[in-house]
Amino acid sequence: MKLEFWFEFASTYSYPAAMRIDKVAATQGVEVEWRPFLLGPIFKAQQGLDDSPFNAVPEKGAYMWRDLERICEARGLPFQRPSRFPRNGLPAARATLALPNDRRPSFVKAVFQANFVHDRDIADPAIIHAALRRAGVEPFEIEERIDDSDIKDQLRADTAAAAARGIFGSPTFFTEDGEMFWGDDRLDQAIDWAAHIAAVQH
Amino acid sequence: MKLEFWFEFASTYSYPAAMRIDKVAATQGVEVEWRPFLLGPIFKAQQGLDDSPFNAVPEKGAYMWRDLERICEARGLPFQRPSRFPRNGLPAARATLALPNDRRPSFVKAVFQANFVHDRDIADPAIIHAALRRAGVEPFEIEERIDDSDIKDQLRADTAAAAARGIFGSPTFFTEDGEMFWGDDRLDQAIDWAAHIAAVQH
Repeated sequence: MKLEFWFEFASTYSYPAAMRIDKVAATQGVEVEWRPFLLGPIFKAQQGLDDSPFNAVPEKGAYMWRDLERICEARGLPFQRPSRFPRNGLPAARATLALPNDRRPSFVKAVFQANFVHDRDIADPAIIHAALRRAGVEPFEIEERIDDSDIKDQLRADTAAAAARGIFGSPTFFTEDGEMFWGDDRLDQAIDWAAHIAAVQH
Repeated sequence: MKLEFWFEFASTYSYPAAMRIDKVAATQGVEVEWRPFLLGPIFKAQQGLDDSPFNAVPEKGAYMWRDLERICEARGLPFQRPSRFPRNGLPAARATLALPNDRRPSFVKAVFQANFVHDRDIADPAIIHAALRRAGVEPFEIEERIDDSDIKDQLRADTAAAAARGIFGSPTFFTEDGEMFWGDDRLDQAIDWAAHIAAVQH
């Protein structure tokens, strides 16, 4: 009874999804697997874009910022539009992979808050370190591991796997029977689906 | 207490929205204005596309068809993936504008069903005529009007107005205070917003 949660740290709608997924999943006994990946190479390969579609198509961007603002307001979630978008999520993605599973959610949420609440550069080592400490990890304990070639290889492989499985945006959720759901607005449906398969199988 | 419902007949997510909007709006006493427009010129101008983004980016298309299938199944709404996509919605959009307001919803729904349930060519005059009859209109009564230059001009002007107001997809909803909502998955929120403004104003 698992749900894979694939996310890119620069992605706007991934912020509200990351902040609530554990709580929603827990109500249905679903376990969440936090899977960071990079959207940049996917946008480039699929759409020939060197930037976020929200910048490439300003009309979509303008709507997205307002929509996100309304979503956060409705949920009582703090939000500040970042002064730079999209930010470089690569170092945070590597750090996530270097962490044990049980530390990932707190770290990931702290990084999303740095980007979308505190308007900080999430590629800055000081911000990554602060997020690690928020997750109860001493930065020096994993600092070397973040730069290990196996972590770099894993992120590259995970991003390739995301593309191969049809991912084109973030957040994306996969249930154990392979159903794919895209967007914060499909999170509840994805959790329901994950819980329902489990009910049928067991 | 009105909600503008802007839609393109070729648009996939506009089908489930069209089928339920009147019912959802009625529960909150919101009146729906049915506003056909053309997405083709907007995709071209904003994204340089000569085709639907769902064809231009096959990964998005593959996900959309599965997502739409799930939505229709969950709502008990018949659905058959059209053998051609996107279909030409121009004649149906003109016909909608030629109809009195009270005939539009039935006609529009009949056209969406022709496209997404019965897999018919919605540019075929026979299909347009059948949809008109479903709406209680004798085709010969408005046939000449559909080709009037003022109807053609109005559709062109409405499409330009849609682009000017920031529309980039269908369905799109506007409340009376100018809030924009995009997608069938924002329909309930749009109706709530429309009803809430009314509550504040009156």
